[in-house]
Order: sequence, then C-alpha cells, then structure tokens
Amino acid sequence: MNAAIRASVRMTLARGVEAIGIYSGYIGMLDKKFQSLQLRDMANIIQRGGTVLKTGRCAEFLRPEYRAKAISNLNDAGIDALVCIGGNGSFTGAHLLWEEFQFPIIGVPGTIDNDIYGTDNTIGFDTAVNTALDAIDRIRDTAAAHDRLFIVEVMGRNSGFIASSVGLAGGAEEIFTPDIATTVEKAVERIKNAQKRGKTSSIIVTAEQQKPGRAYDLADAIRKKTNIDAKVCILGHQQRGGSPSAADRILASRMGAAAVEDILNGYCDVMIGTEGAKLVRVPLQAATQNKKEEGGDLIRLALLLAT
Amino acid sequence: MNAAIRASVRMTLARGVEAIGIYSGYIGMLDKKFQSLQLRDMANIIQRGGTVLKTGRCAEFLRPEYRAKAISNLNDAGIDALVCIGGNGSFTGAHLLWEEFQFPIIGVPGTIDNDIYGTDNTIGFDTAVNTALDAIDRIRDTAAAHDRLFIVEVMGRNSGFIASSVGLAGGAEEIFTPDIATTVEKAVERIKNAQKRGKTSSIIVTAEQQKPGRAYDLADAIRKKTNIDAKVCILGHQQRGGSPSAADRILASRMGAAAVEDILNGYCDVMIGTEGAKLVRVPLQAATQNKKEEGGDLIRLALLLAT
Amino acid sequence: MNAAIRASVRMTLARGVEAIGIYSGYIGMLDKKFQSLQLRDMANIIQRGGTVLKTGRCAEFLRPEYRAKAISNLNDAGIDALVCIGGNGSFTGAHLLWEEFQFPIIGVPGTIDNDIYGTDNTIGFDTAVNTALDAIDRIRDTAAAHDRLFIVEVMGRNSGFIASSVGLAGGAEEIFTPDIATTVEKAVERIKNAQKRGKTSSIIVTAEQQKPGRAYDLADAIRKKTNIDAKVCILGHQQRGGSPSAADRILASRMGAAAVEDILNGYCDVMIGTEGAKLVRVPLQAATQNKKEEGGDLIRLALLLAT
Amino acid sequence: MNAAIRASVRMTLARGVEAIGIYSGYIGMLDKKFQSLQLRDMANIIQRGGTVLKTGRCAEFLRPEYRAKAISNLNDAGIDALVCIGGNGSFTGAHLLWEEFQFPIIGVPGTIDNDIYGTDNTIGFDTAVNTALDAIDRIRDTAAAHDRLFIVEVMGRNSGFIASSVGLAGGAEEIFTPDIATTVEKAVERIKNAQKRGKTSSIIVTAEQQKPGRAYDLADAIRKKTNIDAKVCILGHQQRGGSPSAADRILASRMGAAAVEDILNGYCDVMIGTEGAKLVRVPLQAATQNKKEEGGDLIRLALLLAT
Repeated sequence: MNAAIRASVRMTLARGVEAIGIYSGYIGMLDKKFQSLQLRDMANIIQRGGTVLKTGRCAEFLRPEYRAKAISNLNDAGIDALVCIGGNGSFTGAHLLWEEFQFPIIGVPGTIDNDIYGTDNTIGFDTAVNTALDAIDRIRDTAAAHDRLFIVEVMGRNSGFIASSVGLAGGAEEIFTPDIATTVEKAVERIKNAQKRGKTSSIIVTAEQQKPGRAYDLADAIRKKTNIDAKVCILGHQQRGGSPSAADRILASRMGAAAVEDILNGYCDVMIGTEGAKLVRVPLQAATQNKKEEGGDLIRLALLLAT
Repeated sequence: MNAAIRASVRMTLARGVEAIGIYSGYIGMLDKKFQSLQLRDMANIIQRGGTVLKTGRCAEFLRPEYRAKAISNLNDAGIDALVCIGGNGSFTGAHLLWEEFQFPIIGVPGTIDNDIYGTDNTIGFDTAVNTALDAIDRIRDTAAAHDRLFIVEVMGRNSGFIASSVGLAGGAEEIFTPDIATTVEKAVERIKNAQKRGKTSSIIVTAEQQKPGRAYDLADAIRKKTNIDAKVCILGHQQRGGSPSAADRILASRMGAAAVEDILNGYCDVMIGTEGAKLVRVPLQAATQNKKEEGGDLIRLALLLAT
Repeated sequence: MNAAIRASVRMTLARGVEAIGIYSGYIGMLDKKFQSLQLRDMANIIQRGGTVLKTGRCAEFLRPEYRAKAISNLNDAGIDALVCIGGNGSFTGAHLLWEEFQFPIIGVPGTIDNDIYGTDNTIGFDTAVNTALDAIDRIRDTAAAHDRLFIVEVMGRNSGFIASSVGLAGGAEEIFTPDIATTVEKAVERIKNAQKRGKTSSIIVTAEQQKPGRAYDLADAIRKKTNIDAKVCILGHQQRGGSPSAADRILASRMGAAAVEDILNGYCDVMIGTEGAKLVRVPLQAATQNKKEEGGDLIRLALLLAT
Repeated sequence: MNAAIRASVRMTLARGVEAIGIYSGYIGMLDKKFQSLQLRDMANIIQRGGTVLKTGRCAEFLRPEYRAKAISNLNDAGIDALVCIGGNGSFTGAHLLWEEFQFPIIGVPGTIDNDIYGTDNTIGFDTAVNTALDAIDRIRDTAAAHDRLFIVEVMGRNSGFIASSVGLAGGAEEIFTPDIATTVEKAVERIKNAQKRGKTSSIIVTAEQQKPGRAYDLADAIRKKTNIDAKVCILGHQQRGGSPSAADRILASRMGAAAVEDILNGYCDVMIGTEGAKLVRVPLQAATQNKKEEGGDLIRLALLLAT
C-alpha cells in the first residue's frame, strides 16, 4: 500500500498539484482526518508493510446521508479528486461518490486476495503468497522429519487465488478453494494412494473460506475416514504484513502514478488494472459487480505435479 | 538438528571411527533402521531445516522389554555408543539405556522450547524465536494500520521461554506464560490504560500451554470485559522448521562435536550443555528430573519497555 | 530451475514416458552423464535454489563434431527428445541440434537476467530481483543513518532488467543500465539538486555491464566531480541462489510442464514464453537472434518517484 | 541500535526523568542537535534497522577544545548524564568526557564486529552474522550447481569474529581472519586435497581486514597456484542494516535499560557488557585499551567439520 501512496503523492506533486492524505479511509472523510503531504513524508516508506495512512471499515458509508457529509468535508478541504486504494468494498463506495455527486475518483486495487474483476493482479497478493509460501516451506521440514500430514489454512474468504498459488508453489498434495470442488472423499483417496506408494508426508492447503478455522473441520473429516491425525496450521494475519515484494512495489508504483495521471487527464469512475504487462482502465462498476473466476489451471497442475 | 548430526558424524569419522545413523529415533532402534554415514552424506545439509535422520515418538520405549530389544539390535549392528539429540523424553530413554545396560550414551539438547535443565540454550530455540518474531513483525504492520489488538500464540507447552523472548524482542504489550502469573484482569487493565494514553494497537504474546488454542480463550475473556475484538494468530508448526539461524548452527556444531569427543574419552550418561560461552557436562538424570525455571526478568523488562 | 526440472520430469512420467536427466548441460551430453529420474527424485526440491542437475559451460559445443558426438550419445541412451532449460547460449546450441540433426528439442527460458526475446519473464528473474531488493533495503538503513551515498551493483551483463526493477522497487535515486543512457554528469547534477533540497542519503543502482566492478568507476567519477565519497556494494552471486519466489516456482512449473506436453504433441525448435498471463511458443531462432528491449518506463518512473 | 535507544529512553521516562536524544553522535553534541524524546517517539522502532538518532564520525572530538565545547553544550541543554551506544572510538571519547570533566557517562557496546573487550557480545553482531550467512547459503547453491570455488568477504576490519562465526555456520572450507594465521599455501593445499577426494565446490570466508577487497588478492594468489578461477563476493554494507535478530533486540533492550538504571544509581565511566547470560560492568578504559582475542576454536572446528 505504501508504495502506491508514495507514487500517488509524488506524481501529484510532480504535476504541481497539492497532495492531501485521508487517514483511515472513509472514516477519515467523515472525521476530516485530512493532511497535506510533502515529498519528505513519503521518504523511506516504500519498503514498509501496512499503510502510513492507516485503514478502517466504515459501515456508515452505506447510508447516503453520510456520503453527502463526506463530499461536503472534501469540498471544505479543497479536495478536488480522489485516488482510492482498496478492494471491492472501497470501490463500491467510490463508485457511489461519482454516481451521486460526480466527484472525480479513480480506484487502485489493493487487496491480498487478488479477487477483483478486471485486473490480473492486485497490490499485496504477491507478498501474501510469498509469506504463506515461506511458512509452508518451514512446515514441510517438519512434515518430512515426522512423516506427517499437515493442513495449512491460508487467507481468501471468497476466493482461492492465494490457496492455488501457494499450493502449486509449495508442492502441496491437495488444495481446497471455494470455487474448485474437491471433496474430502477425493482428498482422502489421494492421500491413501500416496501412502501405498510409500509417500509418508503431505501438505494440504485450504482457503479459509467462510470463516477462519475451516482447516479444523477438514482435519476432523480426515481423521474419521483415515485414522490419520493431521496437524493444523492457520497462517492468519501474518499474511497481511511484512515488507512488500519487488513485484508488489513495482505494481503499486505504476498503478499509483497512473491513477494520478489519469485523473488529471479527466478519467473518472474507473479502476486501474493490469492485463498482462499493460495497465488498463476498468469501469468501477464492472470491477465490483463481476466475479473474477479462478480457472483451476494452477490447481490441476499442482495436483498433477505433486503426485 | 542437521548441524548437530553433521558435526557428530564428521567428528566421528575424523577420529577414525565408523559413524552409523539411526533413523526415526527409538523407532529406528527397534526396527533396525541403521545406516553407515560418510562425509559426503553430510554435505550441504547444515543449512536445512528438519532432520535428515527423521524423528518419531516411540511409546513402546517406556517398556523394558522393548529397551532390551533395542540394545540387542544395537549390539548386532556393532554400535558401541550413542549420541542422542533430543529433549526430555529422549533423554529419559537415554538414561535408562545406560542405567539398565551400561550402554554408553551422551545427550545433546535439541528442542525449540529451551526447557531443558542444565543448559542455557537448546538447539532450535534461537531459530524458533526468530521465526515467531518475523511473524509478529508482520502482524504489527496490520495491528498498526487497523488500530487493533492481536493475540499471538507461540509454541511452548510447559514453558514460556519462546513467549518471553519473542514478547520482549517483538515489543509485545503483554506476555502470558505457564510460569509467570499474569491475570486476564491485569492485562485488560493495562490495555485500557494504554488506550487512555492514546495507544490504539497492541500485541499480546501467549505460550500455547496445555493445548494449542489458548489464545482463543484469552480473546473471549478480553471481549467480555472490554468489548475489544482481539484477532487471534496461532503460529504453530512453522516455528519448528526453516533454515537454522547462525547461533543455532554454531551451537549444534559445537555440541555435536563435543558429544563425540566426550564419548570417545569415556564420558557417559551426561548431556552437553552451555553455561555462558562454555560447554559443560550435566548428568542426564539431573537434566530430566529438574525443571528449568524462567526467572521472569525478560517479561518484566518487556512490559516496562512496552508501556 | 529445480521447479522446472520437477515439472518436466513429473509431467513426463504422468504421460507414461521415461524421464532421463542430463547432468551439467551440454558437458553431460558429451560425457554421457545420463540418469533415469523417478517421482521420488523430484520430492522436496521445489523450494531449493540452484539445480539438482548441475550446470556448466561447454565451449566445445560450438564445434559441429562435438554436436554430432552429443547426438550419437543421446541416441545410444534412447533419448528421443530434449527439454533444454537455459539462456541464449543454451538455446543457440539447442537450435543447432534441431537444424543439423532434426533432434526434437524445446527451450524453457531460465536466466536471472530476463534478457530473452519473446517472453515477458524468465525463470529466476523474480527471485534475483527480490534478493537484490532485500540487500538494498538493508543498505538503505545504513545510508539513512550515516547520510551517505551508496552505489549498488546488481547483475545484468548486457541488460538492465534487474537494475531497473530493483531500482524502482528499492526507491533508488539513480539507475544505470546498458541501454538507457544516463550520464554521470546528469546523475551528479541530480544528486547535487537533491542535497540542496535537504536530502542527505541516496542509493544509485547500476547494472554490472561489461564486467563486475563498474560501480567502482562510477564512484571515482562522482568523487572527482562532487567530493562525495560514495560507498560501493557489489551484490554478485548471491543473486543467483536462494529459495525461489512463489512467482518463479509457478512460472517454472507451468513452463516445464508445457514443454513436455508440447514436445509430446510434436512441437519442436521453439521456446516456451509468456505473454501476459498466457504461455506462448516462440521459434528458438527468434528468441536467440533478437534483442529484448528495455522500454525505459520503469527507470523513468523510478527517477520521477525518487525525487 | 534502535532497540537500545528505545530501552534507554523508556527506562529513563519510567524513572520519571526527562530523556533527550543527541543526533549524529558527537557531531550532534557540537551542533546542539538535541531533542526531547517521548514514549511515542519510540513506538514501532524496535524492528527497524539503522538508528533513528543517526550516526556520524567526528574527527574534531579528538581535540580537547571541542570536547570542552561539547560539555558546555550539554550543560546548556540541561543534560546531566549520557548513555553512549557505540564502539571503541565512541568509548574513547566517552572516557575522556568523564576523565576531563567528570561528566557521568555509561557505554553500551554497539558494533557489528563484536571486537570490544569485556563483553561476550555486542549489539548488531548476531544480525550481521545472520545476514552474511543468508548470503553464503545463496552462494552455496550456485557453488554446488557450477562446481566452483567462491571467496566471500565479510566485514571485520581488525577482527575475525564475523568471519569465524559465518564460516562455521556456513560450512566454509577455509576461513581467513586477521588473528588466526592461515596461509594461502595451506588453503591451496587443502583445496587440492578436497578436489582429489571428489569435492568440486568450496567456499572460503575472509574478513575484509585492512581494506575491502582483500578477497580479490586471495583469488589472484589461488589462481596463480592452482589454475582455479575463484569467484569473489564482497558482502559489504548490507551486513550493517536490516531488521535486527531476536537475540540482538533482547541484548539491546537489556543493555539499554541497565545503562540507565546504573547511571541513575551513580555508576560512571563503565561499559555494560555480557558474561554468559549475566550483564556486567567493565571500566571504559579497560574496554578500549585491551584487545579482545579470538580463541580460534570456532575456526578449528569449522575446518575439521568442513573436511
């Protein structure tokens, strides 16, 4: 996130325009947490995890009167346009500000889940995958030394992008995601077959799905059907922090700068996305109202290679 | 572990003696999983997590007839002395092999928990603490960006050495360990005071204690008393793997080599321990029958500095 | 590399075909270093740096009689087709084996430099960039604490892909690559301007270009013109090793598997490349005879944002 | 360093005393770069490399009139006592401030070289060793894949503590330090013997000694005598930065807090050191006028185990 903020602020200043930061997202719009940002404020932050502008959820923003209040605050502060870095929730609010008040706004997709329609990649995804992968590499050391089955739960409430990438990169023997149907029965059968071939340790990667803890349910189901006592690891919030990867910093820098250039050129109500190596503009409504589908290719490849 | 195995094997060969590896610990003694090890087998393993000799729990070893079987197998294989790398359970078995059969055996303390009496440090502890610390640094990024309270559960079933080291090094605001009594009430009071002073994010580190999941109980208790919705992270088995730290590799190399030299010089039924920078010999019985006490100094310092 | 080898071998075996590894590249073809590879040989290698098949340069392969010898050895060993993982040199040899002997061969681009025409990414590039970035983050700590100028030399003999990616992601104030002309004069002017604005520390990233050590020449030139005593860091071969990033493991798995599928389907004399998210086939001759151009976009963005 | 600053400041405030930071070391004393520090200023810095107070060399401090000026500035600012974090140079200055002006001052040993007499460990050493080790692990991947000899130069101008620790932990086949005499001839002989036994790759670790670049001289000498073309890696300043290890943060927290407690209790002109697990006080003059000897045990063990 910080790399995107840095790029937006410095590109704004490079164009001779004042840059104002809004703290804690929509909460900050309602509470007037505005602060003028200078070149120096952006020094030495590109390598830091988290966000210097903080973040927060704002249930009130669903109600029109609060959005009107936000616009009024923005006008009072002399803010003419917004770059909004976030996920589906943030973009839904952003689109409403444009639709209801014609307030110029551009979205930059920042979420570790990579579940935003219209862009190949979102900021934070590559870092989260690498962090989870590092944990899986460590767990594999123990799995191999103890001849054990591990179930590792990664983030991804409604999407399996982290799970499928981590599963392929980590050499997982089984991957569970919300979209791609693998039954516990099939998984159990595969584990039993692997054991017959002499394979003594395995790692199953699962997306957290509806709520954290799904890995425990899986472990129970496997225990009942196989007598195998799987160990559970829930990676949790460590996937959200940490110094960002090179790919994420580059993506964030490009997107943050492009958002500012676009808005100064009059583009509004769009999200900056990637399509291969290129940056593209996607209507905010398209981004929020369509579901990005996992093809399942990575999972199929992962299972084939982990035989 | 691998660094200790490498050091033992190469020191043995350097002394002109054959080195034989026993796979999966005591299970391997019963199942005759013996293998002659050469210099080349130890190449390029010092940096790897886990153990090339695998490991395993062996409940049967508690019964004398199985220990007799193990000794018989060792004799058949021409094995004259043992270096046993492990924790309290392994050392209890090791001491019995000496007591009952006068089989020469020396212990090397290898456990991430650092809970072995008679040695300042055990192999694996420094690596586990650094791994947990890395996770906490990442979590702190999110805690700070979201102004949230996190409860991070680290390993340490009967001991708080990991929790207190990680807590101090990670700047935790509260630390729960089995030995040092901090009540939930006191923790809640400290959190409330910190909030009054404007502090908006905190991290609590807790040892897992009786069973993994203690962090959830803590979160419930805090929720009831403060309305604060703490997020829970359970670091789990990732703490056991990963490339070992420099300090662990050096400790393991020194201990593994010293164990071999000592046993060739006729020492038996002792564990190699550290006392400051020096290596010392500790009777195995003393190591297993005494409890290593946490002094609580690190925790007191951590709480004072995290004000 | 190991992830690509694992994918090729396991995909081959999954198709019911024998997989044979050739050690040390073309040297191994001449010396008959062939070995049949099984599923188990590929276990637990996806996370390792380096290559289990080793590598080597083979000057003799430039001469036709040695290539004939290689083909004769391949035929004797019952090898019908080759997957060749490497860079421009390897592909030049591969194309000749097809052109001269119609030996079926497919290339997989594996080089940290990312300088192969016809593919957006090569295996190893993302890992090398992240490794160099990690070093730069550390150096920035010292640069900031000491108010100093550092010149960091990264790999990239004839190409600036690593330098420009690392430079943007690391917040470098200046980037020197073989293709994009920045003069020492301009760099000095920018450094002086930054100092006037109160900026006290800077990092310059340079590709090694013709030979390692270019950074020392740059430091000399800067010292003469500014009296600033820049510190030099040459990252060197550490950029080539280490556990691969998630993106590299995924890319390698996809490419290695696709190469096998393609060759079994009759495709020859092509390289597997990427174009955005898709895999594509590129004639080997096109890959080796064209130069992949750096656009300079990353560098321009890096300089603008590092103001 | 930041962990020691945090501990000193917060312990000072916990004792009800004002804490004032001096920026850039002795330069700051002369230039009156003093700033009152609060609890909040120390938030979220324990995990950062470098130092928030910056650092700097100050040649003028060798002259008495400048030291008098410094004392005058300290008195003007109402500063009554100093905690000085640094190495031999800093402590020499510190001792003079006490000797000449009876200004209360306590030293905390902060240098990556670990070359300060009177303490087992200095702050930063463990982090630097782990950083160098990480680079060596990466280089070993390449050394093994290419069957090559690498010479890795680590920091340590007048001392070999980093080199011997990194050498042992990294499995280096040869280690050169200022104190322990290994001749190039012996090294060459060992390398040749290893090659005869079939060993094809090796790593030599050398301390930089008089000036960075010594590794190039070694490579030249080896080339002349063996025809082996060793690759050179100079790790350089990356060893100085990066997020500190757990052991360093704990050491720094303990030392920083103890320094403040001691000075408030009237101790002066001493350095806080470690002796095993305990903290001790060492007269500053003893710390600066004695040379800490490397015993050579680590190197002897490293060479024996790397056979």
